[in-house]
Amino acid sequence: MKNKGILIVVSGFSGAGKGTLMTRLIEKYDTYALSVSMTTREARDGEIDGINYFFLEKEEFEEKIKENALVEYANYCGNYYGTPREYVEQQLQLGKDVILEIEIQGALKIKQNFPNALLLFVMPPDVAELRKRLVGRGTETLDVIEKRLMRAKEESAGIEEYDYIVINDDLEQCVDEVNEIVRAAHNTPARNVEFIEKTKKDLERLSEGE
Amino acid sequence: MKNKGILIVVSGFSGAGKGTLMTRLIEKYDTYALSVSMTTREARDGEIDGINYFFLEKEEFEEKIKENALVEYANYCGNYYGTPREYVEQQLQLGKDVILEIEIQGALKIKQNFPNALLLFVMPPDVAELRKRLVGRGTETLDVIEKRLMRAKEESAGIEEYDYIVINDDLEQCVDEVNEIVRAAHNTPARNVEFIEKTKKDLERLSEGE
Repeated sequence: MKNKGILIVVSGFSGAGKGTLMTRLIEKYDTYALSVSMTTREARDGEIDGINYFFLEKEEFEEKIKENALVEYANYCGNYYGTPREYVEQQLQLGKDVILEIEIQGALKIKQNFPNALLLFVMPPDVAELRKRLVGRGTETLDVIEKRLMRAKEESAGIEEYDYIVINDDLEQCVDEVNEIVRAAHNTPARNVEFIEKTKKDLERLSEGE
Repeated sequence: MKNKGILIVVSGFSGAGKGTLMTRLIEKYDTYALSVSMTTREARDGEIDGINYFFLEKEEFEEKIKENALVEYANYCGNYYGTPREYVEQQLQLGKDVILEIEIQGALKIKQNFPNALLLFVMPPDVAELRKRLVGRGTETLDVIEKRLMRAKEESAGIEEYDYIVINDDLEQCVDEVNEIVRAAHNTPARNVEFIEKTKKDLERLSEGE
């Protein structure tokens, strides 16, 4: 019954901890695969090509678009970001639940093209905690922090479009909650069309007296 | 976040084992409450008033209908069946996930009146197994068995209306699966309206520079 993977789109406010959450999820359970995005933006210090992103030239990226090699893509502040199709489809076929960490516009595009995708929104326990985490990182100016909060405000308008929310308070608990949500999602009728059709046909056959 | 219970409607073919499944679920986890239906049909041998059903006279039942004291009701083969409202609402307020074991027409009525209800359909691993279980009970004639299979065929047309299916092969595994599904369902945006609204308001306030 659980032979095909689910495409999982994870979004959340900056500072909600979705990166840590996904890293731990993949470490803890072997049923997941993390999709690495392609981008044309410059690699930041410590970012590794093929781990954090695949870093491409603009021309290479536009070639990918032409070849329909991306599941979704977007352009932010002059840089492209996109999800490579091949890896995603291959892992889904292998039965892995594939995680894409993308923002809300990309998430909604995915939902349009993959109605069986599962959209998950990671939230902080409360807004005060969110601000504390953003400040606590110590790597950003107050100006950047305010911009992120402003962006969070914008993004919060779309939460209802997601299938599930998770509150990232205790990391381990939240990881298990995400895993539970994904396991449960394998049981929707839309993700079990073949099994349901087979049952219907067998009942039909039996009631015809075979 | 998880302060209000979910109304869970459980249906499934006769012989799929939903009774055993629910009994074990309630025994294993203390977050559930099982709603006992009212009926005007005669009690069968071994059935206890208040445990299997509340057994009422026709006039009493019609009084309940008039008083709007039933969440849903239906009439089958001249007998009324219904779900008492008071118990359901009280348990939901207490944070219990309340289980109603009803058939598909009732389930769809519930979904209309309670959009946040969770509809669960219990299926046998396969149709051959279903037939075996029905025959294996040894309490019914072949004629009754054939009627039940015919009814299963009719009911199978509505499976897609349910939110989740579960396959009752191994009982303990299936019980845990149901529990996981219900826990996950607590995390949909529609069931967390207050928390989401609060987050939005707090972000609004913060971005106004307070």
